[in-house]
Amino acid sequence: MSTLVETIAAITPVDEQARTAAQERQNQLTKPPGSLGELETLGNQLCAIAGTCPPPVPEPAKVCVFAADHGVQQQKVSPWPQEVTVQMAANIARGGAGASVIARAAGATLTVYDVGMLASAEGVVDAVVVRGGTADFTVEPAMTPEQCEQAIQVGLDAARQAVADGFKALVPGEVGIGNTTPSSALTSLFTGVDVAEVTGRGSGADDAMLTRKCEVIAQGFALHGLTPQSAAADPLRALQCVGGLEHAAMVGLILGAAEQQVPLVLDGAIACSAALVAVALCPAAKGYLIAGHAGVEPGIQAVVKTLGIRPVVSLDLRLGEGSGGALALPVVVTAAKVLREMATFADAGVTGEHE
Amino acid sequence: MSTLVETIAAITPVDEQARTAAQERQNQLTKPPGSLGELETLGNQLCAIAGTCPPPVPEPAKVCVFAADHGVQQQKVSPWPQEVTVQMAANIARGGAGASVIARAAGATLTVYDVGMLASAEGVVDAVVVRGGTADFTVEPAMTPEQCEQAIQVGLDAARQAVADGFKALVPGEVGIGNTTPSSALTSLFTGVDVAEVTGRGSGADDAMLTRKCEVIAQGFALHGLTPQSAAADPLRALQCVGGLEHAAMVGLILGAAEQQVPLVLDGAIACSAALVAVALCPAAKGYLIAGHAGVEPGIQAVVKTLGIRPVVSLDLRLGEGSGGALALPVVVTAAKVLREMATFADAGVTGEHE
Repeated sequence: MSTLVETIAAITPVDEQARTAAQERQNQLTKPPGSLGELETLGNQLCAIAGTCPPPVPEPAKVCVFAADHGVQQQKVSPWPQEVTVQMAANIARGGAGASVIARAAGATLTVYDVGMLASAEGVVDAVVVRGGTADFTVEPAMTPEQCEQAIQVGLDAARQAVADGFKALVPGEVGIGNTTPSSALTSLFTGVDVAEVTGRGSGADDAMLTRKCEVIAQGFALHGLTPQSAAADPLRALQCVGGLEHAAMVGLILGAAEQQVPLVLDGAIACSAALVAVALCPAAKGYLIAGHAGVEPGIQAVVKTLGIRPVVSLDLRLGEGSGGALALPVVVTAAKVLREMATFADAGVTGEHE
Repeated sequence: MSTLVETIAAITPVDEQARTAAQERQNQLTKPPGSLGELETLGNQLCAIAGTCPPPVPEPAKVCVFAADHGVQQQKVSPWPQEVTVQMAANIARGGAGASVIARAAGATLTVYDVGMLASAEGVVDAVVVRGGTADFTVEPAMTPEQCEQAIQVGLDAARQAVADGFKALVPGEVGIGNTTPSSALTSLFTGVDVAEVTGRGSGADDAMLTRKCEVIAQGFALHGLTPQSAAADPLRALQCVGGLEHAAMVGLILGAAEQQVPLVLDGAIACSAALVAVALCPAAKGYLIAGHAGVEPGIQAVVKTLGIRPVVSLDLRLGEGSGGALALPVVVTAAKVLREMATFADAGVTGEHE
């Protein structure tokens, strides 16, 4: 199994010739040029990812949900008790959670990986890096460098296994009480946008808790000497100091998707914060990313702008778990089918414009 | 078969008690309250439409595409030659058009109805009201009152037949070279927004053509004495004077969906203009409408505001044919499954917030 450094070196940019070929094909299909809007852009990206036009249909998809707990929850950054991580991981694995239902509706397979919850849960894959989760980043680094790399490896392995098993697209998901706080920290560091602007209410913080989330993040930045500059210079250290185990695993999944040249359909704010780290580590990975969903967490706008990607669906979701990514899957599949199945003007004997 | 007047009288408002029950169920499901955003609103609406919670899954869906030609195309309001209506109707029926591919990807069945093209087309259902299409509305009313009612009846019958055949949701589609001009006329009349603000480039009008479209509509309004006030007082006369046969058929389909109490997932600007007429005729029909897609044609914003509905997908489509409505179908289906399949906190043994 190759190391993270080798993986990053092996990732190639998406194929711009295939994208150009796709655009040429779009213009020959029986529709006014450009009239399928972003569905055309998306189809062209699928060609660039696969290196061929028309693209393979990106189904079935695999939703990989990484579950972990957070030391920073000792600072009360979420209104939910920490045992809910284990309970929800079991619920997601059992098929009863939002992401479970949405993934199933999209024909996707969902697997939950425990990368460090307080306790094990039924139906969840044991991929524990450190039982109990991260350390409180206001006191010490959330992870040791070794734990961080090990969690990334869980995601990398999950991506490789999924592609080996025949899955054609990947969606990162997560569950972890308190995890919008590390997400906001990473988003602020990797977009350069102020913490207050990228920090939201997560699963239900009130005004006082929202203020505390911002203060806790500022404390972490001060303790670990983190700035946008230091994060850009050493993305892994930023992830290790203020990230979560599930963020690290999602970084691995994203890099794994790029390595395996399959589309990675992002979920909301938390998955997007991991995408920022992945792209900081490997700019070439960006071309493999599709923004599934624009949620209401404020950080997502900064991420979408930084990554230059447009969300497929905008329905004010703020659930996480991979739900927003899974919801976008049928649209992504449809974008591929447009290029594969639509007739050209020549095929269909349809007269062109102004003729 | 009941008349239009009888149909309108038979349409009942959606069931607000079922909507309230759905909202209560949403709050018991294993997610932070409201965290599935508009997917919850949509699920609640499906309950209100069906009069029961959880709602039936709205699949399979039927996409009914109405094809017709337009006398007003004599004023050169589209860059495409008029024979393209017949060619595209055949292409849609054969499965090669955008709507064909998108509907198939959504598991929907698509049928094309000829309500008045220049000529017949293979694979298209003969429901011709007047061979050759409407008259030029700058010279005379587009339809006679009888033609208009007959075209509405085609849509009503299509809705009833689809529901009898087991379809659980309907999508209106259309094809007709020149048909964004009657759409803009209807949209302006029924929203009260100025013609220039609701008129766009359709399938590719240049600046001069865009100006001509607005002038042609103003001519029609002047000739027939149409104003927002007269349209509100007599919606059928407005439709008959400046609408298209496919607009009238879509009005029938929309009213038929409301009569049959199944969700109607709107397409873009053209279908939306028909929805305005349907709601003007029967305000209770509004509750059955789901805005599938917000396209780039400017009229759609005015419609969405007037009808108070939020588009499910916003991807800059401007194809019509039912493509935007069909693209939204998987999201609508998912909204129903969330209410049917997600576990409650009690079922899943998940601890609530702040406990």
